[in-house]
Amino acid sequence: MKYCSINGIELTTIDIIDRGLAYGDGIFTTAKIVNGQVVLLEKHIDRLRQGCQQLKIQTPLLCGLFEGLTEQLQTVAKDYPLAALKVMITTGSGGRGYSRAGLSDNATNIIIMVSDFPSHYKQMAQHGIELGDSKQQISSSPMLAGLKHLNRLEQVLLRTELDERCEDDLIVTNCFGNVIEATCANLFYWLNGQLCTPDMSTSGVNGIIRQTLLEKCSQIQVCQTALSDLQQAQSMFICNSLMGIMPVKTYNNRILTIDAVIQLQSQMKDYI
Amino acid sequence: MKYCSINGIELTTIDIIDRGLAYGDGIFTTAKIVNGQVVLLEKHIDRLRQGCQQLKIQTPLLCGLFEGLTEQLQTVAKDYPLAALKVMITTGSGGRGYSRAGLSDNATNIIIMVSDFPSHYKQMAQHGIELGDSKQQISSSPMLAGLKHLNRLEQVLLRTELDERCEDDLIVTNCFGNVIEATCANLFYWLNGQLCTPDMSTSGVNGIIRQTLLEKCSQIQVCQTALSDLQQAQSMFICNSLMGIMPVKTYNNRILTIDAVIQLQSQMKDYI
Repeated sequence: MKYCSINGIELTTIDIIDRGLAYGDGIFTTAKIVNGQVVLLEKHIDRLRQGCQQLKIQTPLLCGLFEGLTEQLQTVAKDYPLAALKVMITTGSGGRGYSRAGLSDNATNIIIMVSDFPSHYKQMAQHGIELGDSKQQISSSPMLAGLKHLNRLEQVLLRTELDERCEDDLIVTNCFGNVIEATCANLFYWLNGQLCTPDMSTSGVNGIIRQTLLEKCSQIQVCQTALSDLQQAQSMFICNSLMGIMPVKTYNNRILTIDAVIQLQSQMKDYI
Repeated sequence: MKYCSINGIELTTIDIIDRGLAYGDGIFTTAKIVNGQVVLLEKHIDRLRQGCQQLKIQTPLLCGLFEGLTEQLQTVAKDYPLAALKVMITTGSGGRGYSRAGLSDNATNIIIMVSDFPSHYKQMAQHGIELGDSKQQISSSPMLAGLKHLNRLEQVLLRTELDERCEDDLIVTNCFGNVIEATCANLFYWLNGQLCTPDMSTSGVNGIIRQTLLEKCSQIQVCQTALSDLQQAQSMFICNSLMGIMPVKTYNNRILTIDAVIQLQSQMKDYI
């Protein structure tokens, strides 16, 4: 850990009764710092704001809070040529049981952390990764789908499976058998020449890079996706804010072409 | 808060990089302390042990850990005539991202908290509560169903809905439309003279009182339950380790008979 603060004060501990610990009552975002700047900072701030709204996290100073946060993150990032930034917002200490009633207006805790950038990503982004299928199925959650909230135990268990496997990442389906994402990244694939990404209206995390690609490339189709679709795919990649666009060189040992992915990496290099 | 310790040491803060905060990577249980003793202590310890096993929380000293925990909880409870006990186990500080790889063997944090017992439960248990239907649907989660893990954001949102409603609690369905539980309690109902409780194989928390009732009363049926079944129910109750057996006096404003529930409370008073 290179840096850690709570509400602007450098600290390494947090109140044991913080609701983030008790219930995962909060949200987070993870961003890349390059040359002292947070990549796609505005989008990360928007995600935090929208997450708070959807989860009814009370911040009467919502606008002011997020304006201040932008400046704070810009200041923190200045010191780092390459690093990983994490911002967590929890509902703070208080309430009775699950209830947020009785929380004070300024109970929210904003935690900012800067860590080393994962060193293995650069080579993987050039040469591609090996992808398999997870044996586990994630939840379908109408209340939480799409959000990067603090309830990430399923991702921990997926990662535990991945740590015991030989692939670099795994395709994850939900309890309806629909393909959703990888263990910590979104998925895109070319099927019959059409660039597609799985529908995430009931499961998964709608990541910042996925959102950016959907904005910049109008031809991408959001599709309900079955594992059988991926068996036919010509090319695939996974993406998140730290790894960027990561080509898949093999899927269940079937060799894929990565040319289209390398071309997309090049087209998008000014944005992500 | 009357008492709080981490790994046996009285503390009020925790490492900011604890994985319980970052991902909800852990489990918990809530028990009632009466006359200096933890009610159903053995069952709560069993739940923690089984939760760790199902979530692959590595504790090489698993047996020793839980033996020590039993004694520790007995000692802590001695001071309190009536209180609420909470035990959380997190995977501790460390790992890289979602991965637990690199966590040391003794990274696990065991947090013990004692709080005031909710003062309104006694009267509610005598006179019954008013129950309605939640407008929200919880997830179906093959990986986490039944467990009392730290990913409880859905329960926070249900409680937020309840705080805006006039009922005392709400019936919660999952994304398949099946009835699962109340906002923080399990559900039982009499339909055509048969005592039933919803199936929880894909959603919800299989509570200690529910487990105890299923053991002690062999005639209870575990049923896939629709809201239309509850419209026909003659009697209902909800239960958890703090509230015990709580009769429902009205369901969606329909008056229910609570006689059978009061009789069951009486039969079970030595156990729960």
